[in-house]
Amino acid sequence: MNLVSFTAQGTAFWGVAREDGVLALSPEFPQYRTLRDVIAAQALPDILTAAQGRTASHKAGLFRYTVPIPDPGKILCVGVNFPDRNAEYKDGKEAPPHMSLFPRFVQSFVGQGENLIRPPESAQLDYEGEIAIVIGKEGRRIARDQALSHIAALTLCNEGTIRDWVRHAKFNVTQGKNWDRSGAMGPWLVPFTDPAQILDIALETRVNGELRQSDRTGRMLFPVAEQIAYISTFTTLRPGDIIVTGTPTGAGARHDPPIWLTPGDRIDITAEGIGTLSNGVADE
Amino acid sequence: MNLVSFTAQGTAFWGVAREDGVLALSPEFPQYRTLRDVIAAQALPDILTAAQGRTASHKAGLFRYTVPIPDPGKILCVGVNFPDRNAEYKDGKEAPPHMSLFPRFVQSFVGQGENLIRPPESAQLDYEGEIAIVIGKEGRRIARDQALSHIAALTLCNEGTIRDWVRHAKFNVTQGKNWDRSGAMGPWLVPFTDPAQILDIALETRVNGELRQSDRTGRMLFPVAEQIAYISTFTTLRPGDIIVTGTPTGAGARHDPPIWLTPGDRIDITAEGIGTLSNGVADE
Repeated sequence: MNLVSFTAQGTAFWGVAREDGVLALSPEFPQYRTLRDVIAAQALPDILTAAQGRTASHKAGLFRYTVPIPDPGKILCVGVNFPDRNAEYKDGKEAPPHMSLFPRFVQSFVGQGENLIRPPESAQLDYEGEIAIVIGKEGRRIARDQALSHIAALTLCNEGTIRDWVRHAKFNVTQGKNWDRSGAMGPWLVPFTDPAQILDIALETRVNGELRQSDRTGRMLFPVAEQIAYISTFTTLRPGDIIVTGTPTGAGARHDPPIWLTPGDRIDITAEGIGTLSNGVADE
Repeated sequence: MNLVSFTAQGTAFWGVAREDGVLALSPEFPQYRTLRDVIAAQALPDILTAAQGRTASHKAGLFRYTVPIPDPGKILCVGVNFPDRNAEYKDGKEAPPHMSLFPRFVQSFVGQGENLIRPPESAQLDYEGEIAIVIGKEGRRIARDQALSHIAALTLCNEGTIRDWVRHAKFNVTQGKNWDRSGAMGPWLVPFTDPAQILDIALETRVNGELRQSDRTGRMLFPVAEQIAYISTFTTLRPGDIIVTGTPTGAGARHDPPIWLTPGDRIDITAEGIGTLSNGVADE
């Protein structure tokens, strides 16, 4: 039973995905403004109980997905986290001992089915297929062997990037990673109940049906448990915080010559047990 | 008339600074949960009218300052933005054409008078005195000559850094800049009504009374108007968003040998027309 956020006729809802659409539950739980509140209140079981046996309140086509958590306290992305990704940089540098991290603002993401936006300032819009985890339980200096118990849910992320703006400045990839509506998150939150949901699952990205990225989470240089342990060393992780866990080799920038996204393209990111995040591309 | 956020006996308030303490106004304006809401509603004039002629509701010693805006949508910091700062990196690289940017999470800051926290993982806690601006009016691709009209208020920032964690990874300074309670913001928000408040004002940092940083905003490599124009190219700036505008030369890491902060130190950051942000240092 997967959790969704969506809008219909200008109103924002959260609820659960159904075979024939989505079931709005936020009107029945006004104490939870967003799915972040649901997770923080550990109210997932109540929601799932309330949803049982019920069909869609909004059929497909009569609603639009939004990012599952519209108000995360923070979104941290892990860079260079699959084999061969370090070599792709061709900078002659060894892989560093610690993971690369950069924040994204939630306004840089759209929901399932929406177009990624290519701005007039750049032709270098690129995709990166990733799995994202949502924190369910607050923690600081979380031990690695306890780390997975802090996950409330999984989702998918197209960590869309304006490639030439990533290296605009002396440090940091901030500006290339934070264009409004340049990435996507969704389609939904899959409740996390079993480590097997993340330890070694397949992750694939297709552009117009063509397989561009394909790897398994079991090959991550810094596995998810280590990400939670390392990040929580310096910052308290709180319910609704999101970690975007890294992309396999094969983004458009890594092709020779590079292949950028153009209007009309369709990107599908699929992970075992989570689903498929699909988005188009449009010019601003 | 400067705006403050504070706690007293476990309750959070916002209000205005008075000579003898602070005047809580949040109980009279329940529609505005935080100063972010006040700014977003453009309610500053109402607040200032309500405060007129009134004395403190909480005398000095009976309240604790918190960061002025506890819930900013985003905090973006500008790096390497004063003369000689690029040379301090000794990496033989020319100053880049665009400004370096990195986000900080609000949980990395404490309010006026609180201690910065040195964690057990590092002895390299460092100060950086900066001026921060608070956005008052939403905008995307804001023209440089309109940029200052988007500022609602000014404040000060000790952009405290765990220096050895800044270069942990391949890219980005994220982890060294985001330790919980490693920096400070405050003491208050100074309403912004005149470009002269920011164009060429003195900014100084003292550690235990010794002058360590001293420069003027008129010497910024990327002036505040340019920061607003550049950042809003890629991300919509919204009321309550904060830009931390860069630190002069002279942080502890730039001394030979470096001088780190230790428990009992006191850091005072002063800017003309804004005030002084003062914090101590304690071990976690």
